[in-house]
Amino acid sequence: MASNSGTKKMALVCWSSDLDRVWPVLILANTAAASGFDVDIFFTFWGLRVLQKNDVRITGSNWMQKGESFMDRGGTNHLKLGKMHMAGMGTNMIKKLAASYKVASPQELLESAKDLGVRLMPCQMTMELYGLTKDDFIDGLEPPVGAATFIDLAADADICMFI
Amino acid sequence: MASNSGTKKMALVCWSSDLDRVWPVLILANTAAASGFDVDIFFTFWGLRVLQKNDVRITGSNWMQKGESFMDRGGTNHLKLGKMHMAGMGTNMIKKLAASYKVASPQELLESAKDLGVRLMPCQMTMELYGLTKDDFIDGLEPPVGAATFIDLAADADICMFI
Amino acid sequence: MASNSGTKKMALVCWSSDLDRVWPVLILANTAAASGFDVDIFFTFWGLRVLQKNDVRITGSNWMQKGESFMDRGGTNHLKLGKMHMAGMGTNMIKKLAASYKVASPQELLESAKDLGVRLMPCQMTMELYGLTKDDFIDGLEPPVGAATFIDLAADADICMFI
Repeated sequence: MASNSGTKKMALVCWSSDLDRVWPVLILANTAAASGFDVDIFFTFWGLRVLQKNDVRITGSNWMQKGESFMDRGGTNHLKLGKMHMAGMGTNMIKKLAASYKVASPQELLESAKDLGVRLMPCQMTMELYGLTKDDFIDGLEPPVGAATFIDLAADADICMFI
Repeated sequence: MASNSGTKKMALVCWSSDLDRVWPVLILANTAAASGFDVDIFFTFWGLRVLQKNDVRITGSNWMQKGESFMDRGGTNHLKLGKMHMAGMGTNMIKKLAASYKVASPQELLESAKDLGVRLMPCQMTMELYGLTKDDFIDGLEPPVGAATFIDLAADADICMFI
Repeated sequence: MASNSGTKKMALVCWSSDLDRVWPVLILANTAAASGFDVDIFFTFWGLRVLQKNDVRITGSNWMQKGESFMDRGGTNHLKLGKMHMAGMGTNMIKKLAASYKVASPQELLESAKDLGVRLMPCQMTMELYGLTKDDFIDGLEPPVGAATFIDLAADADICMFI
């Protein structure tokens, strides 16, 4: 840790596509970036789905990849709570509650994160597993990286969390 | 990181109200505090429920907040395992096992954490979402804070974990 | 943090026995070790099951411990996805996908981690809870340790994550 430059650094792993985990990832990233931190987020495993375009439906090139994409639809508008999803009822209620208390949606937070200079990095290995290509993702991402790149960033960060 | 003072620091995010996650949060916090660390815990999202009084039942002021509080009862005595809860059987079994091996309960660990000077900080935004007020919580908490405050503490900590 | 020696350090908590969490633990550990990091992994709670021999079936000495071991079979070959397990179908599909893209299995990653000098540390308290003994585990582990030992390692690490 102990970054030598003046700028503080945060490195996060976004491992999940659950709404209740993606939200803290993006709130922490936005808040840190707004306070002047350099922020890197590594999207891996289920979390890679967060970077998918909202209007892309079935992805991948073999039946296993297509099946996985059918069960776990990507894009910030389709995230579900990891608990109390209750066939959509719980997820909708929380989203409604959040909106009424002016908590930004994951979609808005992802946009503002990019505007604040947060680097969004897709995991290369997960892209291959899922059969996802650059065209399946939203614009403005960093090139795909591997675990070794993330580890280097994390070792140099003041804050590192796996979420 | 690299705290300049002699005292080491730990900053934890308690994000979950699952028994199997709250337990490690409190065990790590107590153990670190007993070893002389300054410890801060930020209770956010589902984790905020941990700080609720055990005898408070329905909380919040609108039907969504009340519904959420009904489904996710707060207080250390009502935490459930995140997996193998099995309609209470698994959770009860683990609690019984823990007691027979002299592992302190979440309730005892929360009390001893306060006694050891661990700072318990409710997340302001989650309080608003859930419609929780100071009166719903146990005594001895720090004032509610936002993500920015936690990030400052985390950047200065020797150990930071999202649990 | 700020390790004074030249060697960088990583300290991970492996808290889960879910395939989708054990995989990142082992990938991060292997990648860091291959890049020259000193790596320690603390296996606790459900995560302790990862270190169990694959051919050991029922463990523990009382009915609660035996029941838990029946529900949560240990060993790298028996890990299940934390979501989309779908009665084994999802888990098998992901394992097949991973194999076809040359992603190493948890079993292979655990072996290579040991070869690379990663220290695998069982949690003493969890061992007692589960009634597990040294004979239930694979070879090549460190002696069991408590939370205090892990905290000391974590405070000295450049990267610390709870997974």
